[in-house]
Amino acid sequence: KKNDIFDLSGYVMFDYDRFDASLLEDGTESSSLVEIRRARLSLKSDINDLWEGKFQVDVADGDIDIKDAYLEYKGWSFADLTVGQQKENFGLEKLTSSRNLLMIERSMVTEAFAPGRSLGVSLSGELPSVYWQLGYYAPDYATDSEEASSAVTGRIAWVPWQENDNLLHLGFAFSEREYDGEQFRINERLEVNQADSLLEGKKIDADNVSLQGLEILWVQDRFTLMSEWQQASVSSIEQEDYDYEGGYVQFGYQLSGGFRKYKNGKLSKVSDQGWELTGRYSEFSLIEENEDAETYTIGLNYTLNKNVKFMGDYIKAEHFEAGTSVSSGNAISFRVQYSF
Amino acid sequence: KKNDIFDLSGYVMFDYDRFDASLLEDGTESSSLVEIRRARLSLKSDINDLWEGKFQVDVADGDIDIKDAYLEYKGWSFADLTVGQQKENFGLEKLTSSRNLLMIERSMVTEAFAPGRSLGVSLSGELPSVYWQLGYYAPDYATDSEEASSAVTGRIAWVPWQENDNLLHLGFAFSEREYDGEQFRINERLEVNQADSLLEGKKIDADNVSLQGLEILWVQDRFTLMSEWQQASVSSIEQEDYDYEGGYVQFGYQLSGGFRKYKNGKLSKVSDQGWELTGRYSEFSLIEENEDAETYTIGLNYTLNKNVKFMGDYIKAEHFEAGTSVSSGNAISFRVQYSF
Amino acid sequence: KKNDIFDLSGYVMFDYDRFDASLLEDGTESSSLVEIRRARLSLKSDINDLWEGKFQVDVADGDIDIKDAYLEYKGWSFADLTVGQQKENFGLEKLTSSRNLLMIERSMVTEAFAPGRSLGVSLSGELPSVYWQLGYYAPDYATDSEEASSAVTGRIAWVPWQENDNLLHLGFAFSEREYDGEQFRINERLEVNQADSLLEGKKIDADNVSLQGLEILWVQDRFTLMSEWQQASVSSIEQEDYDYEGGYVQFGYQLSGGFRKYKNGKLSKVSDQGWELTGRYSEFSLIEENEDAETYTIGLNYTLNKNVKFMGDYIKAEHFEAGTSVSSGNAISFRVQYSF
Repeated sequence: KKNDIFDLSGYVMFDYDRFDASLLEDGTESSSLVEIRRARLSLKSDINDLWEGKFQVDVADGDIDIKDAYLEYKGWSFADLTVGQQKENFGLEKLTSSRNLLMIERSMVTEAFAPGRSLGVSLSGELPSVYWQLGYYAPDYATDSEEASSAVTGRIAWVPWQENDNLLHLGFAFSEREYDGEQFRINERLEVNQADSLLEGKKIDADNVSLQGLEILWVQDRFTLMSEWQQASVSSIEQEDYDYEGGYVQFGYQLSGGFRKYKNGKLSKVSDQGWELTGRYSEFSLIEENEDAETYTIGLNYTLNKNVKFMGDYIKAEHFEAGTSVSSGNAISFRVQYSF
Repeated sequence: KKNDIFDLSGYVMFDYDRFDASLLEDGTESSSLVEIRRARLSLKSDINDLWEGKFQVDVADGDIDIKDAYLEYKGWSFADLTVGQQKENFGLEKLTSSRNLLMIERSMVTEAFAPGRSLGVSLSGELPSVYWQLGYYAPDYATDSEEASSAVTGRIAWVPWQENDNLLHLGFAFSEREYDGEQFRINERLEVNQADSLLEGKKIDADNVSLQGLEILWVQDRFTLMSEWQQASVSSIEQEDYDYEGGYVQFGYQLSGGFRKYKNGKLSKVSDQGWELTGRYSEFSLIEENEDAETYTIGLNYTLNKNVKFMGDYIKAEHFEAGTSVSSGNAISFRVQYSF
Repeated sequence: KKNDIFDLSGYVMFDYDRFDASLLEDGTESSSLVEIRRARLSLKSDINDLWEGKFQVDVADGDIDIKDAYLEYKGWSFADLTVGQQKENFGLEKLTSSRNLLMIERSMVTEAFAPGRSLGVSLSGELPSVYWQLGYYAPDYATDSEEASSAVTGRIAWVPWQENDNLLHLGFAFSEREYDGEQFRINERLEVNQADSLLEGKKIDADNVSLQGLEILWVQDRFTLMSEWQQASVSSIEQEDYDYEGGYVQFGYQLSGGFRKYKNGKLSKVSDQGWELTGRYSEFSLIEENEDAETYTIGLNYTLNKNVKFMGDYIKAEHFEAGTSVSSGNAISFRVQYSF
């Protein structure tokens, strides 16, 4: 067995976080921590013109997790078929590879809602000015379940104009998710990965969860603007309803020239090496729990070449209960990212 | 250090199982489950004409397990020497790579008895019309043991005639295994991997285990017939004896033409792409426990190309205690298999 | 994304140990055990002339651990910069790759003191006749800590003369390590990996640890002499001091000719295939605990080619408490090592 067309790649991210005690659950003094944030290895093979396969694993703390593991069929004119473990098509920021994010961490709402990877079957197609995806998945909420949970997730993006460095993307996505009594719970950090989860919702034995999201992406030469709004309605098995919502607005500006690339309805990497200035406002609300959070971030990224990237973010985060600020703190995060 | 002759490969299997509640220990309704059945990565290197190395890992549920990890010396005329972790040479179906099985799962008797991989040293040779293997192994029954367990396992196959698409293979294999008080227990599913283990033998503090097996493989053009009979005698440290036995008959028929390949005393992949019809009868008996099981399976496989294969099986399984059927159920299993 | 300059390699070591009951904590009879001692996979990429990246994982017992994971910048004339997870520069034997050791296991003092790999930043440079390294690290003593521990580790080696097969290396290394109350404890085997840890020091809630080490390496044609002396001073958070010290002298002699290579202040592999005779005397003392150990080892290595190496060691170990021998035993170890 010979592997003629075969691509091995990967990336490692080293992170340093320094943050106030207020971003810890029981913190008494500020913390400085380092970690390997992600270490990923990917194998991609073009089986032939019609079939493509990908296999990706993540290594962390002694564990290895299968991320992407799918087979894609590109032989139909109306849509491509993907079978296996894959990202569910919900959320522009979630669908953006972690290597290509504007900020070091994704926004609270993306982390809280976006389903991530599941075993399933999906279709993705392209019409004039439109990208669409639709999939049926068996998310893995619980490992001992006798019955796979199920989810239908879809996304459509209208791109009224699209040139290399000038485009507008307007997207809508939804996900209808059966939980069969498995637990749903909001448990989120305020966009600092080595700090603690301060946003803690009720533990809900969920019957089903409905997600909706709106996306805007505008690329105009050196300037990128990206924003999403998402909401989740959770029905418990005792017929109670819980609502959550949030969103963010973020921008990037290529100080050294160039632009952010866009491909198949997703944000991709910068076109040129050099400096990028970024900023974000992000918020998240647990409506019935009467709990909120807000963050403001500014950042500076430096892309050395296709393999090496540096990122720095300053984050100001505030946490509210019943409308009153219960904690507020600052953090700085640095990342060295190495792709191969 | 440059790696001139080096082969990286792997495979991923995605499985869907739907089965009756009767195939679960405490099931009340039928189940549908999906899983990544196997995800394997292999490195093979031809060191030179005389030495060859292989290293293979399996990734599952956060864990990574070393499968094959051995060094093979091919410099002697009478036999090849293999040192390291390797499959013990017992059981035609076990020695068949999971990528090349006729059915989605191996038979009950193979799963129950065949030793699988152990650290050890083995010889494998070829005489006119005969393949033989003999090895001394240190199976890893318990991790805290002060003393490695040991096993001697051998196999001989007589192949009275052998052309590409026309051969007869008659094999015998044995394994004499020291347990030193480690536990032996039959704990098997009825050939549906995501269902529960219904065949549950006594937990025996074993002194030693003797295994014997008979193998028949007949390939005649599009038709492949394969059958094994195996038995195990377990002596406990209290001098009690327990006996187990079982076997299967299975066939494959290449609807689209071609034949099943055969190599070094083992079944290999199909020669051509296309459809294959399969069937199996399988049984297993725990004699002292007076417990039995039987399965009937029919299946259909489609080999798209050397990278992609689809399999579907319908299984009818029955479980007996003291000769009386205690549960019986049906299952369907589908597999998408991607090799790279 | 195409990977033009990219190097995948790895190695697997298979070990057999047979040792007396006295090398086990509660042993009653001698033991024979086998194991896969190390299974490592490395990816190395030359990003360009200035940047280089390495990623290495170790697979063992279901776990996968990130070993080297760093990015190296070689663009400055005075020093190279390394960012990420890397070996701290302490101890000649520790810095020698496990593939190139003279004996199967490293000495007690190296295993007890040398910090191994940490996340951090280091500089390494070269002056006429001098190699130096200096780094700042965040060792991972505890996983739940709110504050990263920190360490400054440095090493300098003077090489008064250096030809291919004739050199003298005199080195000094230190490490100043903040523990912030995390536990320090000596817990070492007597250079037989599958035996038990007999050297057991007090569990100390450490405030800081100071390490110092001296190194000599002398290569003269077929003969290699290598020796280190190291000491550790541990201050507990209750202001108590504990001292530990130890060292070894070991040699290698290339029976078949050739010599041991030396590169960037570290011992490397043999220049030619063939036989190597080795020997070692090693000792270690827990001063306040009044506990000591000594080992004598002789060994024979055979390097078949750049991929395959065999090693055999005979070890005589003795363990003293308050100056009195409490146990003494013999062991033999064999290794088959396969690099690819």
